Amino acid sequence: MATKPSIPKGTRDFLPEEMARRNYIFDTIKSVYTLYGFQQIETPAMENLSTLMGKYGEEGDKLLFKILNSGDFMNGLTDDELLGRNSVKLTSKLSEKGLRYDLTVPFARFVVQYRDQIKFPFRRFQIQPVWRADRPQKGRYREFYQCDADIVGSNSLLNELELIQIIDEVFHRFGMRVAIKLNNRKILAGIAEVIGAPDKIVDITVAIDKLDKIGLDNVNAELREKGLTEEAVSKLQPVLAMGGSNTDKINELASILSASETGMKGVEEMRTLFSLIDTVNIRCAVEADLTLARGLNYYTGTIIEVKALDYQIGSITGGGRYDNLTGVFGMDGVSGVGISFGADRIYDVLNGLNLYPEATTRKTQIIFLNMGDAETAFILPVLKRLREAGVPAEIYADAAKFKKQMSYANDRAIPYVAIVGESELQNGVIALKDMTSGEQCNVTPDELISKFVK
Amino acid sequence: MATKPSIPKGTRDFLPEEMARRNYIFDTIKSVYTLYGFQQIETPAMENLSTLMGKYGEEGDKLLFKILNSGDFMNGLTDDELLGRNSVKLTSKLSEKGLRYDLTVPFARFVVQYRDQIKFPFRRFQIQPVWRADRPQKGRYREFYQCDADIVGSNSLLNELELIQIIDEVFHRFGMRVAIKLNNRKILAGIAEVIGAPDKIVDITVAIDKLDKIGLDNVNAELREKGLTEEAVSKLQPVLAMGGSNTDKINELASILSASETGMKGVEEMRTLFSLIDTVNIRCAVEADLTLARGLNYYTGTIIEVKALDYQIGSITGGGRYDNLTGVFGMDGVSGVGISFGADRIYDVLNGLNLYPEATTRKTQIIFLNMGDAETAFILPVLKRLREAGVPAEIYADAAKFKKQMSYANDRAIPYVAIVGESELQNGVIALKDMTSGEQCNVTPDELISKFVK
Repeated sequence: MATKPSIPKGTRDFLPEEMARRNYIFDTIKSVYTLYGFQQIETPAMENLSTLMGKYGEEGDKLLFKILNSGDFMNGLTDDELLGRNSVKLTSKLSEKGLRYDLTVPFARFVVQYRDQIKFPFRRFQIQPVWRADRPQKGRYREFYQCDADIVGSNSLLNELELIQIIDEVFHRFGMRVAIKLNNRKILAGIAEVIGAPDKIVDITVAIDKLDKIGLDNVNAELREKGLTEEAVSKLQPVLAMGGSNTDKINELASILSASETGMKGVEEMRTLFSLIDTVNIRCAVEADLTLARGLNYYTGTIIEVKALDYQIGSITGGGRYDNLTGVFGMDGVSGVGISFGADRIYDVLNGLNLYPEATTRKTQIIFLNMGDAETAFILPVLKRLREAGVPAEIYADAAKFKKQMSYANDRAIPYVAIVGESELQNGVIALKDMTSGEQCNVTPDELISKFVK
Repeated sequence: MATKPSIPKGTRDFLPEEMARRNYIFDTIKSVYTLYGFQQIETPAMENLSTLMGKYGEEGDKLLFKILNSGDFMNGLTDDELLGRNSVKLTSKLSEKGLRYDLTVPFARFVVQYRDQIKFPFRRFQIQPVWRADRPQKGRYREFYQCDADIVGSNSLLNELELIQIIDEVFHRFGMRVAIKLNNRKILAGIAEVIGAPDKIVDITVAIDKLDKIGLDNVNAELREKGLTEEAVSKLQPVLAMGGSNTDKINELASILSASETGMKGVEEMRTLFSLIDTVNIRCAVEADLTLARGLNYYTGTIIEVKALDYQIGSITGGGRYDNLTGVFGMDGVSGVGISFGADRIYDVLNGLNLYPEATTRKTQIIFLNMGDAETAFILPVLKRLREAGVPAEIYADAAKFKKQMSYANDRAIPYVAIVGESELQNGVIALKDMTSGEQCNVTPDELISKFVK
């Protein structure tokens, strides 16, 4: 193999610096989830295909990575099956397992499987990679991490509040300005109901979303194109004209939706949620936004989406409330609410705005150069004391040329270099070079330790 | 789907408590690796099969999990290929990617691929799952984590020393008594050479290993069975009789191996390594042990193995020095040394000896019960202050029956329960119950905060 090796398209290696930045993101999210009482779980990369198939639509079934059965997988196939060359049909004969496509379906499976061991309401988080055989493109990968938190087994809006607080805290720690946008599926259903077009929820939401870009006349034209009657379009006008504060919007909706039981339930949920939000002083902007159409095929109540304010990119976090998470696995009545941080996009924003704390990528504080065996014997106990005190430290393993060792320290961006040559050894001191200022001074081992151990 | 869902055999779900214990293990290893200047990387779960095949022997090729190609994978196959039903041959037509089998081959691929970006000597660590289509049995899984650290691009024995220090530090932090056993492939080669049986390294090592169990006579008989001449067996007797301290053994070996250049190089390496170990005061026992036969097909120098002293289980950590890690990918001259912590076995030992610190699984410190909306409005700002101070805390989301809420707090083993009912609300206090002692007292919000924030 003389050709340079490579990895499958759509997958990534993470080099040390990228890895340190990603760890900063995951560790921050993890520690906020823990602060709010969420407990981590993990599920296996491979699930039975019977668990995964049919959960993501026909297109999703195709995008599952399937594991070829082990052993003599060709043996059970008939001549007709083989010569039919029907890849879709044969998949079920050649493969029993697939890689997880998201964390939600494995979590639903988990809840059903361990229903007797789990304490409800169950607050779990999960940070693991998922795999999709999608066509790779900029920002879309075939392997990527999801960072989900869900509370299942509780209908209380306090859960929504806590997820919003978590979002606020995470982005506060990242130093990122964001807006949290809230919608409610019941309000959208109510609007569709009162204008007499209950099956047009998605079309209406998408049209509202275009208002800023294409203007009211074009939106109305588009709605007619989608099959809304003149009466429906006309009834929708107050919704399209809606503005003002969150309270204004909620009051307006309460008057528009008074005839719809579902719609009024949505309005009350949103009103309660905003009044809860007022009690805890959320730092970032929280806005009612009827244009959020995220996950309309599974969310049943609150819908949450987060936008970065200082960087142009799609939604960086999202979530919502769903009914009946586990019905498909034969366990009814488990509803919940969850969020998912988009780690890859957050990574892009933090890079773009240069928001990483310096300590994120700079771990090793000091490196000892290697001038020979006698010098090394003097250094090793000092190095040990530094590490015992929790200071990440290194020694250059080979007594290589001075320039080579300095160049390593420089490339690794290690802030201090300690040198013990013949004369330092004789005097029992260490020459300490500050790589930022270029200054160098002699210190005793004790002085060195107290400099690094605060 | 009415049947209870399950996961593929040989794979595992990790529930919150197990997960917390595993995190304790991984976090400890990770923080010691970082203390020693190792940098974390990650590689994708899927590698091209051209990267993986042929690297683990014929048996290993069979144990790779292979990913079925996406799309119309049957199309390119001829009638003859199909009807031949040769699963091995067809695998290469049906699959281009496989799940990684270990972290070493992906790391070798990584080093070659990023050779121009990496600073050598490169100290990397990697903690990720690997997959093997092995027959599952007790303690053997189809998905398990490896925790590897390697230094590549340096021949210095200081690297071996640092890996031994890392092992010592990790098990010290775990509170586990272990013995580190050291061998050297060159010594084994030297022994085989001087007794005139250079191709019998493995047989000799295995035989020496049985000395304690089956006695000298049976060992000699076995050696003859394996094809060693009478002369070779006789020449091996001083090795079999060897004992005493590490220094005794090394001196003895120096005299036995004086005729073998390779053997003497191994002896010198071991002598140097033990003298380095003496300079840093390793806490656990470090022993020269000629019976270590681990990885004899790829290790070329030092071999390291770790045994738990207070728990009956196989090797819990191992490693060694290898030449030419990347030769198979067309890049020669990259040697290195590495170790791998056996997380699953360490988990078993820590469980068996009950060595987890209490804080490992107990995260949430206090839960507020939910007695209604007015009480909740009083609680939310207090809860917020606790979390702002870094205290993991929860509120029960639903105003459920008191007993149900207490039972949740109890099952979750949360140490303090805070209750605000009607009378506490009127008095502006919180009833705080210590779940361990059963004691309960009223505190103001400020008093509560100062109790938890030290």
